[in-house]
Amino acid sequence: MVKETQNLIKGLPHKTIERLSQYRRALLICLEKGKEYIFSHEIAEIQHITSVQVRRDLMLIGYSGTLRKGYNIKELINLIGNIIDSPGGINVAIIGMGNLGRAVSKYLTHKRQKLTIVAGFDINSKKIGNEILGIPCYAPDEMKQIVEEKKIGIAIITVPATKIPETTKRLINAGIRGVLNFTPTPVVVPDNIFLEEYDMITSLEKVAFFVKQAMIEEEENRM
Amino acid sequence: MVKETQNLIKGLPHKTIERLSQYRRALLICLEKGKEYIFSHEIAEIQHITSVQVRRDLMLIGYSGTLRKGYNIKELINLIGNIIDSPGGINVAIIGMGNLGRAVSKYLTHKRQKLTIVAGFDINSKKIGNEILGIPCYAPDEMKQIVEEKKIGIAIITVPATKIPETTKRLINAGIRGVLNFTPTPVVVPDNIFLEEYDMITSLEKVAFFVKQAMIEEEENRM
Repeated sequence: MVKETQNLIKGLPHKTIERLSQYRRALLICLEKGKEYIFSHEIAEIQHITSVQVRRDLMLIGYSGTLRKGYNIKELINLIGNIIDSPGGINVAIIGMGNLGRAVSKYLTHKRQKLTIVAGFDINSKKIGNEILGIPCYAPDEMKQIVEEKKIGIAIITVPATKIPETTKRLINAGIRGVLNFTPTPVVVPDNIFLEEYDMITSLEKVAFFVKQAMIEEEENRM
Repeated sequence: MVKETQNLIKGLPHKTIERLSQYRRALLICLEKGKEYIFSHEIAEIQHITSVQVRRDLMLIGYSGTLRKGYNIKELINLIGNIIDSPGGINVAIIGMGNLGRAVSKYLTHKRQKLTIVAGFDINSKKIGNEILGIPCYAPDEMKQIVEEKKIGIAIITVPATKIPETTKRLINAGIRGVLNFTPTPVVVPDNIFLEEYDMITSLEKVAFFVKQAMIEEEENRM
């Protein structure tokens, strides 16, 4: 890729990256249905955002459709792929093969060509040395070796809260580059490791807050 | 609650609500460890944000600590609870008791006093009429009746993509007030239903993008 394009891409806002990922997901579904072209307002409708937002994001990655036909879906999928995906793909490990780890594994397997779950780690001796959902499972103290051997770039953390400090230390030591933390405990990693955290309790409490507000308002309107 | 306070709370930004939920989570852990007071910079450190942000959020909910001792942890937990939680609690249903649904159920059970999972729904006849992880499981066509009987306010959607349109229709018809969608397919609900969506592929692709950028930069520095 030309250096200028690379610099442009490097500067893309986090939110744009998230939306590009979501556009691609929507485009893949449209393509499967046999659709060839799509307008910004159609993407906007699927994503519940404005078409101005869609056009702005796609302009940022240097793509413009034709006024009459809209965007070429295949072209756009490939372009987003060029931006998000690594040509050789990235290998992923699941740290903690309990309920959450297994659900995440099952959910993510074969969803994206360029992201492959190649290893699971767990302290349970019954899991170590066996395959779970087709994923070979290892002991935590094998982490450094396996991460290097299997060229694992990203770890998804699904261990219990008490295991977070130990797990983080091992991952840093193993040279992991990106971490997706699905536990409710914040993880601390050095700046050169990209960290993304998601806690479903926060999402659920947000919904709960707005449901409560709606109920209070109804109550007030009734009075 | 006084009307003025209620109006103030109603206007809280979504991001503040999310952070309040996260502060409470951190505060609960501190309280468990026997800590009584906490400074804004300590909360900031746990959450990887600035202490200015913490102080701004807590000022928005009308709380200020003492300069010398910081915030009283118990008081702050209660205050956040008054804002987020409904006094009588909110009942939650899991729609789709597959891998993801069960992982979510297990994860959320007994995590928050005021949020209780009271029902699961699934099309699998082996699950219907039985308890899964202690949660009674019902058929989709019982949804309206069960939502009313059990006063369910929030639904968490964990069904396969193909079942989304049907599931959404049923939930709207049942009078649900809040929806948390964990599937990669966007859900469409009327404005009076609060919707929160999370797709883990988007998070994973975001991590993948930044890992790729870091790898390209390293490559360039080596040349």
